[in-house]
Amino acid sequence: MRRAIALAARGLGSTSPNPVVGSVILDASGDIVGEGFHQRAGGPHAEVHALRAAGDRARGGTALVTLEPCNHTGRTGPCAQALIDAGIARVVYAVGDPNPSATGGAETLRRAGIDVEGGLLADEAEAGNIAWLTSVRLGRPHVTWKYAATLDGRIAAADGTSRWITSAESRADVHRLRAECDAVVVGSGTARTDDPHLAVRGIDGVVQPLRVVLDTHATTLPTARVLDDAAPTLVVVAEDADARHLPGVELLRLPLHDGRIGVHDLLTNLHLRGVRSVLLEGGPTLAGAFVAAGAVDRIVGYLAPVLLGAGPGALGAAGITTITDALRLDVTESVRIGPDLRITATLATKEH
Amino acid sequence: MRRAIALAARGLGSTSPNPVVGSVILDASGDIVGEGFHQRAGGPHAEVHALRAAGDRARGGTALVTLEPCNHTGRTGPCAQALIDAGIARVVYAVGDPNPSATGGAETLRRAGIDVEGGLLADEAEAGNIAWLTSVRLGRPHVTWKYAATLDGRIAAADGTSRWITSAESRADVHRLRAECDAVVVGSGTARTDDPHLAVRGIDGVVQPLRVVLDTHATTLPTARVLDDAAPTLVVVAEDADARHLPGVELLRLPLHDGRIGVHDLLTNLHLRGVRSVLLEGGPTLAGAFVAAGAVDRIVGYLAPVLLGAGPGALGAAGITTITDALRLDVTESVRIGPDLRITATLATKEH
Repeated sequence: MRRAIALAARGLGSTSPNPVVGSVILDASGDIVGEGFHQRAGGPHAEVHALRAAGDRARGGTALVTLEPCNHTGRTGPCAQALIDAGIARVVYAVGDPNPSATGGAETLRRAGIDVEGGLLADEAEAGNIAWLTSVRLGRPHVTWKYAATLDGRIAAADGTSRWITSAESRADVHRLRAECDAVVVGSGTARTDDPHLAVRGIDGVVQPLRVVLDTHATTLPTARVLDDAAPTLVVVAEDADARHLPGVELLRLPLHDGRIGVHDLLTNLHLRGVRSVLLEGGPTLAGAFVAAGAVDRIVGYLAPVLLGAGPGALGAAGITTITDALRLDVTESVRIGPDLRITATLATKEH
Repeated sequence: MRRAIALAARGLGSTSPNPVVGSVILDASGDIVGEGFHQRAGGPHAEVHALRAAGDRARGGTALVTLEPCNHTGRTGPCAQALIDAGIARVVYAVGDPNPSATGGAETLRRAGIDVEGGLLADEAEAGNIAWLTSVRLGRPHVTWKYAATLDGRIAAADGTSRWITSAESRADVHRLRAECDAVVVGSGTARTDDPHLAVRGIDGVVQPLRVVLDTHATTLPTARVLDDAAPTLVVVAEDADARHLPGVELLRLPLHDGRIGVHDLLTNLHLRGVRSVLLEGGPTLAGAFVAAGAVDRIVGYLAPVLLGAGPGALGAAGITTITDALRLDVTESVRIGPDLRITATLATKEH
């Protein structure tokens, strides 16, 4: 199963709106005879790839799958039926399928006389599929807030200079993060100040994420790098914003609440477009709005061994005024990236 | 030698103004026959402890010492002579003695016909003795700035509440840090706001550090916890401060420069009192003053997986306005302490 989970991860960033899934087929004597993972939406599911690789050797064998095999016919046929047709004797899956339209695969397999077991390495498999699972449970994309700061929490010096706080290694690592997400979101402040490109560089064969600029008053310049054709781009503006200077740019118009576009309005709309995972790369103001809206599921902080003592903090006002209201997380990983530390943490509250 | 370095560390916090030193004696066939470390100033040096344990078995053997054996007679006799008298055939030390009044031990040993080698595991031994070595080189104590903050660099919420950002495990770990230092320094702001006790709790047989309150205008209350008798306390005030409300309290009066007590004045005076290592536990203002004075050698940050988005930052104004002037460090360690991360970093510039 651990191998299947590793295979699944190879699909991160290219399978949405589908989950990432990995599968390993063992023959009747327990040898690996097929491997596969879901590569992109509309393409074959993991089990089908693995069954194809195994061929006749799958008969009487075991299928290990990171997610309960699907039971419905979408663009591809149901995997439960494919496993039955291949003569698989036993199916072991990690995580049950929470998707109402696809669930029931285990039951179908059992009725066909197949030995079915769920829950093997479920926590690991769930962690690997957390974006998709979150999106099914909450009806919005999974959100990772990424920031790069000094040890004293600053993202720039007092005069606004910030190149470079973190190392080249950390900046390269961010491209990997982007590649694993469906959309990258920044605010108009960051877009104007840094003129970021936001496309993935340095990773072959990547599916570029959707670049999203939250730009209430349509202040994005037509010359902004984010508007080039390296990746698709969506500029999100207020319903009545004047965006005539952005011809040919895809706009999403959303209503204002207290003069702001709502974080949940934005996320719901991205979800409808098939976005299951968002990397929030905006500045402190946008990050504060997401935290205030309860819409940050994971943070990835790149901390450089640097002290400034002044300058803007990584996180702006998030509606937290006293220590008992602080947002508490669990550190899930802390690793060195060049001279920096990358800290990953997820919400401490359990929603399931 | 690694064993000798570990022995040396057991003296941290109790040997000042002397270094920490560990020693292992091997007999002529290479077996360990004696171990020792310098336990406190005025007591026997590490080599003497180890030679006593070894007795006659030291004859013809090897002495491993973390620091070049001393050559002078202070409160104890010179170790070089003790090694000669014990019939040691070979001495291996890690770090040369930079102290002008004690150096020359290696030369004395060589003249007595002993085989002498220096530099074994020198980097490790130097790291273990960094406070004392820094104090000899710079004529001031080694300074460790300790802070506890959220992932976004805040030490308190917007309303000032801060109990507790970091965990009980982190707070216990701070007592270990204190125990290894000669003095703990806070500013009057922290003294008034938090009324800290600053003594070491929970560690048996500890030599309590000197508690130092930098209190320019003598605003410390006579009821402050830091003034109890759990450990010695020094209140540092301006030359002309009115401290009549603090009878019986040991005061150090220092001149003001631009209305402030100078960081280097303070450190020089502490050095004269035998303080070789300082743990700076003050708030952001005091930490900023130390950073601005170039008087922070090491930082130990306890980072809690918490986000606040508002509230005071860990480090206050340090005279750094642009990114190229940022203080750059090297991360030497990053470990989990309960739910928190403890990050240790030292100055990136090499002074030797």
